[in-house]
Amino acid sequence: LQPFAAFPAPLDLHNLAVVLVSPRNPLNIGAAARAMSNFGGFDLRLVAVHGPSFREARSAVGPSSEIVRRARVFPHLADAIADCSLVLGTLAPHKRLPDVPFLPLTEAAAQVRETLQHSRVALLFGPEKTGLSNDSLSYCHAVAGIPARPEHASMNLGQAVAVCLYELSREMARTTPASTPDQPSPSAPAEHLDRITALLRDSLDASGNPVAEDQLRRLVRRLQIDTDDAVILTGFLRKILWKLQHPNTK
Amino acid sequence: LQPFAAFPAPLDLHNLAVVLVSPRNPLNIGAAARAMSNFGGFDLRLVAVHGPSFREARSAVGPSSEIVRRARVFPHLADAIADCSLVLGTLAPHKRLPDVPFLPLTEAAAQVRETLQHSRVALLFGPEKTGLSNDSLSYCHAVAGIPARPEHASMNLGQAVAVCLYELSREMARTTPASTPDQPSPSAPAEHLDRITALLRDSLDASGNPVAEDQLRRLVRRLQIDTDDAVILTGFLRKILWKLQHPNTK
Repeated sequence: LQPFAAFPAPLDLHNLAVVLVSPRNPLNIGAAARAMSNFGGFDLRLVAVHGPSFREARSAVGPSSEIVRRARVFPHLADAIADCSLVLGTLAPHKRLPDVPFLPLTEAAAQVRETLQHSRVALLFGPEKTGLSNDSLSYCHAVAGIPARPEHASMNLGQAVAVCLYELSREMARTTPASTPDQPSPSAPAEHLDRITALLRDSLDASGNPVAEDQLRRLVRRLQIDTDDAVILTGFLRKILWKLQHPNTK
Repeated sequence: LQPFAAFPAPLDLHNLAVVLVSPRNPLNIGAAARAMSNFGGFDLRLVAVHGPSFREARSAVGPSSEIVRRARVFPHLADAIADCSLVLGTLAPHKRLPDVPFLPLTEAAAQVRETLQHSRVALLFGPEKTGLSNDSLSYCHAVAGIPARPEHASMNLGQAVAVCLYELSREMARTTPASTPDQPSPSAPAEHLDRITALLRDSLDASGNPVAEDQLRRLVRRLQIDTDDAVILTGFLRKILWKLQHPNTK
C-alpha cells in the first residue's frame, strides 16, 4: 500500500439544496444535517415535515445543529425547489419509473457537479418508509439510484444522504475546475417549468381537453428548456390561453 | 441527462469483515448492519462492545437484524482480525499518524477490492467519540480517510460504514462487463418537429399574436423532443388550435 497524503479540498456545495420530503424520524433529520456538515452542504429544506419530529431534531445539539436550526420548511415540494435548475430525486435502483430518466448515482453526480458551478441543484429524499411518491418524482429531471442488493436496496435516510454527498465530493480530486467547456445555457429553474406546465394545463382545459397535471409536468421536464426559451414559451402560452379564455375579444 | 438503466451487480463482499471497536450506541450497530445488508457484507464483528448496547441492537428487528444476530463478539481486537490478510482502519482524514500509511478512501478501496478476491479483509471503525486508538491503529496495515471538511471531519459511525461500503462497491460499475444501457429515445424526426412548429405558429396566429416561423422552428429544435413526446405534443397543440379556431363550439 502506497501512502498518499494530499487529500483533495472538499467540494463547494453552497449551490446544493438537500430536500427531505416528509421525513418522520428526527434522528434522520439530524443525520442528514451531519452528513451535510461533513461534506460542506448547508442548505437543508424540509417539505411537509412532521412538526414534533422537526422540533425534536432542532433541539438536538452538535456540530450540525446550526444546519437544522436554519433549515427552511415548505408545505409543498414545488415551493421548496422553485429556485433550482436541476432537481434530482433518489430512489432504490430497483424501483423503476416509466417517465423519468434513471441514472446510477455516479452518472447523476457528474451532472450535478457541472450544474452546481452556475445554478442551484436540489437533491430530493423521500419519506423513510415509502421513498419519493410518483407526484414528487414528477418534479424531478432525473432520478439517481444507489447500487445496492436487490434483496435489500432500501437505505436508511441519513446513510443515503451521506453516500450521495460523498459521491458528489469524491470526484473533485479528479475533475477540479479550470476546464470550462462551452457553457450550455443553464436549465430553467423549476418555477419557470411549473409556470409552463400550468399554462399548458389551463390551455388544454380551456380547449375542453383536460390532461393530468403530473403528466404535463413530466413532459415539460423532459423537454430540457433553458431559461431564455422558458420565458419565450411562457409568453406564447399566455397569449394562446388568453385567447382561449376570451374567444370573442379582438 | 442521459438515461442509463443497467445497474451493476453489487460487489461480493463475503470476504469482508466489518469490525466495530467498542461501539456505544445500539442504533449505530444497527445502522452498520443495515449498510452491510444494502451493499452485500454479512460478517459483522464487535470488539469490546458494551453489553447493553449489543443486547439492544440485537433486539431490533428489520431486514438487517439477521446480521446483528449472527455478529461475533471478541474481547480483543487481535482475535477479531486474526484471519484477515489486510486490516484497514478508518479515521477522519486530519488525524494523521506517524507510522501507518494514510490513504484516501478511494485508493484504499482499490487495495481492498483486490485483496478480497483471494483473502479476508477487515475494515475497522473506532468508538463514536474518539475514533480508533493508537493501540487499535497499530494492528492496521493502512488507514483510510474519508475526505470531509476540516472543520467537521468526524462522521457518524453508521454513515461512515455506509460510505466505505458504497466506495467498495461503486467501482464495480466500471470493472464489471455486460452493462447494456437502455437505448435513449431517438430524437423526433424533422417532420414531427415541423408539424409542431406549424401548429404553434397557427395557434399564435389564431390568438392574434403571429410569430415568425423561423423563430418558432429554432425554438422547437432547441427543446430536444423525442419521438414519443413529439406525438403527445402534437396532439395537445391540435386540440388547442381547434378550439382557437372554433371558439363557440362545445
